[in-house]
Amino acid sequence: MPNIIYINGKYASYEDSKIHVNDRGYHFGDAVYEVIVFNNKIFYDFDGHIQRLFNSLKSLEINFSFSMSSLKLIIKNLIKMNRAIVGSVYIQVSRGISERNHSYYGLNIKPILTIIITKKSNIDINVKGVRAITLDDNRWSRPDIKTTQLLPNVMAKTKAVKNGAYESIFIDSDGYVTEGSSSNIWILNNDNKLITRNLDGKILSGITRNSISSFAKENNINVVEKRFTRDELFEANEVFLTSASSFVIPIIQIDNHKINEGLVGNISLNLRKLYFDNFKS
Amino acid sequence: MPNIIYINGKYASYEDSKIHVNDRGYHFGDAVYEVIVFNNKIFYDFDGHIQRLFNSLKSLEINFSFSMSSLKLIIKNLIKMNRAIVGSVYIQVSRGISERNHSYYGLNIKPILTIIITKKSNIDINVKGVRAITLDDNRWSRPDIKTTQLLPNVMAKTKAVKNGAYESIFIDSDGYVTEGSSSNIWILNNDNKLITRNLDGKILSGITRNSISSFAKENNINVVEKRFTRDELFEANEVFLTSASSFVIPIIQIDNHKINEGLVGNISLNLRKLYFDNFKS
Repeated sequence: MPNIIYINGKYASYEDSKIHVNDRGYHFGDAVYEVIVFNNKIFYDFDGHIQRLFNSLKSLEINFSFSMSSLKLIIKNLIKMNRAIVGSVYIQVSRGISERNHSYYGLNIKPILTIIITKKSNIDINVKGVRAITLDDNRWSRPDIKTTQLLPNVMAKTKAVKNGAYESIFIDSDGYVTEGSSSNIWILNNDNKLITRNLDGKILSGITRNSISSFAKENNINVVEKRFTRDELFEANEVFLTSASSFVIPIIQIDNHKINEGLVGNISLNLRKLYFDNFKS
Repeated sequence: MPNIIYINGKYASYEDSKIHVNDRGYHFGDAVYEVIVFNNKIFYDFDGHIQRLFNSLKSLEINFSFSMSSLKLIIKNLIKMNRAIVGSVYIQVSRGISERNHSYYGLNIKPILTIIITKKSNIDINVKGVRAITLDDNRWSRPDIKTTQLLPNVMAKTKAVKNGAYESIFIDSDGYVTEGSSSNIWILNNDNKLITRNLDGKILSGITRNSISSFAKENNINVVEKRFTRDELFEANEVFLTSASSFVIPIIQIDNHKINEGLVGNISLNLRKLYFDNFKS
C-alpha cells in the first residue's frame, strides 16, 4: 500500500516524511492547516477550504506563495500516487525553519508545506447518532483562525472518547455554546428554527457549516445565526455537528440529556443527504 | 562549528535533525518543553527545570520514562559534542508519532525527546533596562503547563519587537498583570514590597521566579505573591522580569510610562547579582 506524503517540495515515503526540528510549527504551533475530503473525483468544498487556508496564513502574517491551482495539482498527484479513491487531504503550512525565538519580526524564512492523504474505505450517506459531552471553552482568543494551537481540543476530544462520546462541545464563560472540539454545532429549536452560532470570533468559520447553511436556506429551512445556551442545546428538537471529515452527524445525547428521545432527527438526516447531493459529479 | 542535536535517541547533525511529520507536536502542539542555561560547568536551576518538565508531562498524561540523571547525561554529552562553554539547552518532549487524530485515548506511542544546544558568547552580570508593552492575555486556560501552545506568545513577542520593545506583558480581563510572553513580571511597589503574581493557574510557576523569591527573602526583602494591576505596574518604583534565559532584566518603560524615571533600579540589579552569586561553582 503506497503511503506517499508531500513534504516541502518533495513526494516522500512515509518513513522519509520528516520536517526539521527547528520548524516553528514544532516549537510554537506556529502553523495553520485544513482538511478536505475527496470521494472518487469529487472534492468537498475544495475552494472554500483553500481560501480559508489563505485567510489563516494572512492572519498570522505567513507569506505563502502557492496558488489554489498549484495546490490542487499537488493534491491530485498525491492522490494518484497513493492510489486513493476515497479519503481526506491534510494540508499544513508552518511559518518555516529558524533558530528558536518567539518573535518572527524580520525573519526571512520560507513556509513549510506538508500534505498527507488518508484513505478511507468509503463514505456512507447513512449515519448513526452520536453522544457528546459539554465542557468549558478554554481555548485562546483566536479559534477563528485554523491554527495548530490544538491542545485544548486534543484534551477535550480525549475526554469525550474516554467517556464513550464522539465529541466535546465547548461552552463559553457566559453559558453559550461555541463549537465542538473539531466541529460546528447546530440545534433545531422548539420553533423549528435551525440555529448555529454567528461568526463572532469565538468559533471557526466552518466550511461545511457555510455550505449546510446555504443548502438549508435553499430548502426553505429557517436558518438563524446567533448564540444559544447550553440549556437550549439540551432542550433542542435536534442537535447535529458539521465538519469537513464528518459532514453532518446527528447528536442524540449530550451529557445526561437525551435529544429527541435519543432518536436521530429528520432535519439532520436530510441536511446530510443534501450535502452529498450538492457535490455529486 | 559542530551543531549536534539529540533527536529521539540519536545525536544528529543539524541537517539530519528531523522529526516525523506525524509527530503530534507538529499537528497539535501536543508537547512540553524547558530551557536551561549553562555557564562553564554550572547549570542554572537544573533540577527545578527537569522537575517542572516531569510535572508538565504528567499534566498532559504523557508517559515519559527518562530519569533526571539520564537526561543530565545526554545534555552533558551534547554540550561536550558541541564544544559549548556557555549557552542554553532546549528540551522538548512530544506525545509521539501517530496518524492524525485529536484523541490520544488508548494510543500506545513513545514520546519523542529532542534536545538542542544554543551557544552564547558569554553571560553578562551587567544589564541594561528594557522596554515592554502591555496587551490582553489571550492564551488558553492552562498557561501553568509549559506546553508548545505558544502562538499567542509568538504574536505578543513579535508585537513587542515591532514596537522596539523587549517583552509583552499580558493583562487579564480583570485588569491584572499575569506574566510576560516568555517571563514572569515583578514590581517593587511604593511601599518597597516586591510583588509577583501568586500561582493561581494563570501563570507559569517560573523556576527563576522561584529562585529569585528565595534569594530575595534570604536578603530581607519583603516578597509578596499576589495579583497586581496594570496601574500598579505603571506606578511601581521598579519593574523587572525573570526567565531562564534572561535571569533578571529591569524594565524601565512600559507602553508610554517611564518606570523609575527610566533608570534601572537597585533592587532589580541586586537580585540579578544575587542570582548569579547563588550558582557560582
